[in-house]
Amino acid sequence: MRVFLDCYPCFLRQALEAARMNGAGEAQQRELLHRAMDVLQDVPAGATPPEIAHRIHRLVKEALGVADPYLQAKRSSTRLALRLLPRMRQVLAGAPDRLECAVRLAIAGNIIDFGPAGTPVDEDRLWSTVERALEQPFAIDDVPVLRGKLRGANRVLYLADNAGETVFDRLLIETLAIPTTYVVKGGPTLNDATLLDAQEAGLHGVADVIDNGTDVPGTSLSACAPRLRGDFARADIVIAKGQANYETLSDCLRPVCFLLKAKCEVIARDIGVPVGSLVVDFAGLTQV
Amino acid sequence: MRVFLDCYPCFLRQALEAARMNGAGEAQQRELLHRAMDVLQDVPAGATPPEIAHRIHRLVKEALGVADPYLQAKRSSTRLALRLLPRMRQVLAGAPDRLECAVRLAIAGNIIDFGPAGTPVDEDRLWSTVERALEQPFAIDDVPVLRGKLRGANRVLYLADNAGETVFDRLLIETLAIPTTYVVKGGPTLNDATLLDAQEAGLHGVADVIDNGTDVPGTSLSACAPRLRGDFARADIVIAKGQANYETLSDCLRPVCFLLKAKCEVIARDIGVPVGSLVVDFAGLTQV
Repeated sequence: MRVFLDCYPCFLRQALEAARMNGAGEAQQRELLHRAMDVLQDVPAGATPPEIAHRIHRLVKEALGVADPYLQAKRSSTRLALRLLPRMRQVLAGAPDRLECAVRLAIAGNIIDFGPAGTPVDEDRLWSTVERALEQPFAIDDVPVLRGKLRGANRVLYLADNAGETVFDRLLIETLAIPTTYVVKGGPTLNDATLLDAQEAGLHGVADVIDNGTDVPGTSLSACAPRLRGDFARADIVIAKGQANYETLSDCLRPVCFLLKAKCEVIARDIGVPVGSLVVDFAGLTQV
Repeated sequence: MRVFLDCYPCFLRQALEAARMNGAGEAQQRELLHRAMDVLQDVPAGATPPEIAHRIHRLVKEALGVADPYLQAKRSSTRLALRLLPRMRQVLAGAPDRLECAVRLAIAGNIIDFGPAGTPVDEDRLWSTVERALEQPFAIDDVPVLRGKLRGANRVLYLADNAGETVFDRLLIETLAIPTTYVVKGGPTLNDATLLDAQEAGLHGVADVIDNGTDVPGTSLSACAPRLRGDFARADIVIAKGQANYETLSDCLRPVCFLLKAKCEVIARDIGVPVGSLVVDFAGLTQV
């Protein structure tokens, strides 16, 4: 996926929000914005949005002197999602098609994202998102393809996205009932889930949780640990959550099942769906 | 009003949109963004958002080599609003309180704005905005104060905001039935109305239309022509439309009736209302 200049304003907003989350005063906020603009002016023409995001959030951590600027925000998201877990289990238990329902829930969880503007931070707003996701028609519906691929699969590689969303992933993994390797980031970046975040969401009880060896957003295979690249090549099915995984893997040469909500114009346009769409896209299907 | 760093991402978005409106290729878009970031890094700490917007849009004009980058967008907005005029006249004719109804329409027109994201560009979306504005309770309701002040007033100074919105202003001016001086910008900036835009919206038939002698957004009195400063001091009532007029005049020492829709978090927070609020704020009332 090529760079979209529309992401530049978004990166500045993210830097500003991260500064405020960590109690930076106005002078420090301004200084961080200036340095973020230096980074953006220095970006090579071919860099992808996740690569630029990586530089911006490395700067944020360094400038604020904080290893994980989103730690509290992530912890709140996880707690919020855990509070909804019983209600989600109830919905799932009553669903006529449990796989589709669990997929819908996993996509609903993708709304927890401090990248685009407007992450729901209270229980009611998050639950309305869940309810909408249970009803809304998919813009791309490869659930039948996913269902077919799951038959006879021995292992699923599940590429996580954000903290909090992890709780929703847990339900899908339980529903799949296939041994799953759950892959989180090797270091903090934006509100992406790390090993700690996955543990707090209870993922260690349902999957083998590993980190990908890098703090680059999405799954930039060249930046990932060799072990992850091997797992990626060998897995029977790869499920990839969220926009950054789509941005980094949509051109790769093995089939990947992308589960995401198209949250911004840039991604929506690239996929060819309206903003707000629910997407189950088994891409790369014909290439293997 | 003090500077808000949240405006920085917004300015980059505006520069990018203006470049695209004028057919700039990706390299030129990137170049413009880089230069816009230079401008933002060079902004004095005390500059207000309209002052920064002025610098950004001066750069946009210069970099694109176009005197009025929003000319086509403004013309479309005016035509769109003119198409709604008969329906608006009908609503107004049937209104139990014609002043309040005309004020509501004038505020509804304030949604036509290429500054914040998401200007309605089709008739249906614009009309839904109008319909919502006719029903929605005011967050600040100084209509009674405005009504009182209008009694016995000999001249209204009406500070315009955007092209297209001008058509809505025309209805309010007709309803006031008091001699009115309608003030537009002295030169193109964003989609703010100029003399040409006001003429195309039919304002010359209902008011004395003058320009304020500057292309600074809002009404920056120090940048305006001396004549405008005199008119401003002497007018019985000043009605000021939109966010930029609020930003530049909210601390001034004479009463001003601000009519606006709070379209972004920055302004909404400053006024103390939720985003999306309709505001009729007769501010500075006690200072004269």
